[in-house]
Amino acid sequence: MSDGKCQSDVIEPLCAKKFKKDDQNENGVNESQLQLRDFILSKILNNNTNRKIVCALGNFKDKSGVALVILEKNAFKEEELNEKGYFSEDSELRTFFQNDIYGNYVCFPNSSINGVKTTIIYPATEKHIAKYSQQEVHIILETPQLYQKYTLSHLAKEQFNLQWVYNILEGKSEQDRVVYDNKCEKEGFVLLPDLKWDGLTKETLYLLAIVRQREIKSLRDLNEGHLPLLKRVRDEGKKAILDKYNVPGSQLRIYLHYQPSFYHLHIHFTYLKHEAPGIYAEKSHLLDAVIDNIEMMNDYYQKATLPFTIREMDTLFNVYETNGYIKRIKENIELIDK
Amino acid sequence: MSDGKCQSDVIEPLCAKKFKKDDQNENGVNESQLQLRDFILSKILNNNTNRKIVCALGNFKDKSGVALVILEKNAFKEEELNEKGYFSEDSELRTFFQNDIYGNYVCFPNSSINGVKTTIIYPATEKHIAKYSQQEVHIILETPQLYQKYTLSHLAKEQFNLQWVYNILEGKSEQDRVVYDNKCEKEGFVLLPDLKWDGLTKETLYLLAIVRQREIKSLRDLNEGHLPLLKRVRDEGKKAILDKYNVPGSQLRIYLHYQPSFYHLHIHFTYLKHEAPGIYAEKSHLLDAVIDNIEMMNDYYQKATLPFTIREMDTLFNVYETNGYIKRIKENIELIDK
Repeated sequence: MSDGKCQSDVIEPLCAKKFKKDDQNENGVNESQLQLRDFILSKILNNNTNRKIVCALGNFKDKSGVALVILEKNAFKEEELNEKGYFSEDSELRTFFQNDIYGNYVCFPNSSINGVKTTIIYPATEKHIAKYSQQEVHIILETPQLYQKYTLSHLAKEQFNLQWVYNILEGKSEQDRVVYDNKCEKEGFVLLPDLKWDGLTKETLYLLAIVRQREIKSLRDLNEGHLPLLKRVRDEGKKAILDKYNVPGSQLRIYLHYQPSFYHLHIHFTYLKHEAPGIYAEKSHLLDAVIDNIEMMNDYYQKATLPFTIREMDTLFNVYETNGYIKRIKENIELIDK
Repeated sequence: MSDGKCQSDVIEPLCAKKFKKDDQNENGVNESQLQLRDFILSKILNNNTNRKIVCALGNFKDKSGVALVILEKNAFKEEELNEKGYFSEDSELRTFFQNDIYGNYVCFPNSSINGVKTTIIYPATEKHIAKYSQQEVHIILETPQLYQKYTLSHLAKEQFNLQWVYNILEGKSEQDRVVYDNKCEKEGFVLLPDLKWDGLTKETLYLLAIVRQREIKSLRDLNEGHLPLLKRVRDEGKKAILDKYNVPGSQLRIYLHYQPSFYHLHIHFTYLKHEAPGIYAEKSHLLDAVIDNIEMMNDYYQKATLPFTIREMDTLFNVYETNGYIKRIKENIELIDK
């Protein structure tokens, strides 16, 4: 659920007068064409329980072609938090349980503040369906042996082309975007805004440090020989970001992904309050923790069992599945199709 | 917004029969004590527009002391996505705009699926207010020396009351919620749904294992003597969740927080696809990684530098600030008080 045309807009349910009047009566009720009561669900493509967004695939009665219905709960508005909104006579409170000073309830508020953002894409194409579908995901515990036997040989075959990385390092591409450049071949790196960031908004700050050494594939290759490089990335990266964006190092999340999305060592810098994608414990390793681990044990990353997440659609999943380390979710189809 | 007793619960509005009957009539309506219509708002402490959670500070009419009301929109449930739920005659759809194949609407669904999770903390303390207020956050790198010198002595003074934990372990509270109970004093634990979870919806699955040993404060105390306990929690916890909820271990995120919200060892189990709060690399440590670290080095958690995040309002922040380890963001005051 990211950007793009398919995101629903924030809708102010109390302001029906703002609504477009075509195809609806004076209350803003849609009288023609699409009605949710005519929607026949065939599959839930994705249910984001964190953001409270669900994407449903189906069709409308007596209409050809498939449709996507995307529902999203609205964020709370300040003007709803008063004696006309949630704290009104109309709010019904049911007790779930009480323990000491903590009480859990369910509140059924006035229906005027109960609108749900709704987006309908009709007719929807295969590409819309792919965009809104969620994959089953699993954790694999990668021992050093499994890394050698399966992951390493797999990534040698499947690696994405790294030419775009070399273009940046060689000054052939994106040079106007570079924030900091240390040209030392052994300890140098290029720092530039990640593609997901606009380069301006502090709240979503996201930069990438790409090291100049080319033979470091990932976390797995790191040892004490790399400590000077890693500390340089940390310290010079922090300073460059403080100088340019006025964000102190204590408010930066500096980390490596495992597995990374490309196998040339790179380090992520994001604003600590920003819930950037992939910052979860099963995927991200703080640079300070990496440095500390290597200082405690030179070959930590050659000895450790590293968990990583994998989607059933990924080819590496097949390798581990074929060898009996992971099982595909069969029930998925039933659950979704019920 | 992490774990602990202060989180609101997911409540199943369609199952009023499950509700506790004390202080309520046969429809589950709370007839005594706290009513939202009596709540007088003084300040919105935090409004998470991403997760759709709002925390309000205020007081109840004719009652002394302050209260926190935390409202959270529910995630969508699969069983609501049918001709009795969103796709029913009762769903009113108002058009916001239409452009080509994309249409944006607001849907007013049947009120039975309109419940909002509500947590009331009354009377609330300064610490509760701090916990729910939004503020500047920083990372501190806690060396073993800093832990001994500052964190440990601080938490001895500031620890939340653990009586609710002991109530669960001793079978005095929430026994109907217990999913699995291993009564061994040394390696036993109680597994129960976290307060943030309704105990039903797979998409937001969240359980907590609370160990029976009382002297383990956090990750920092763990060594090889605890490996049998940790492996039991992992293996028996996974099995109990597979048996009861049909979620395989490879789709569980099993982890510890550092710092935890209370200093009695507990382990989180969440569904891997669920973006639960506090699962970020700077806060969460996968149990498998913890076990692996201790197996590689008995005193890993006594030697490691552990990063943790801290908010400027937390009293532990003051300790580190006073001693020169962290600097406050000055603009904070204005932002919060605006």
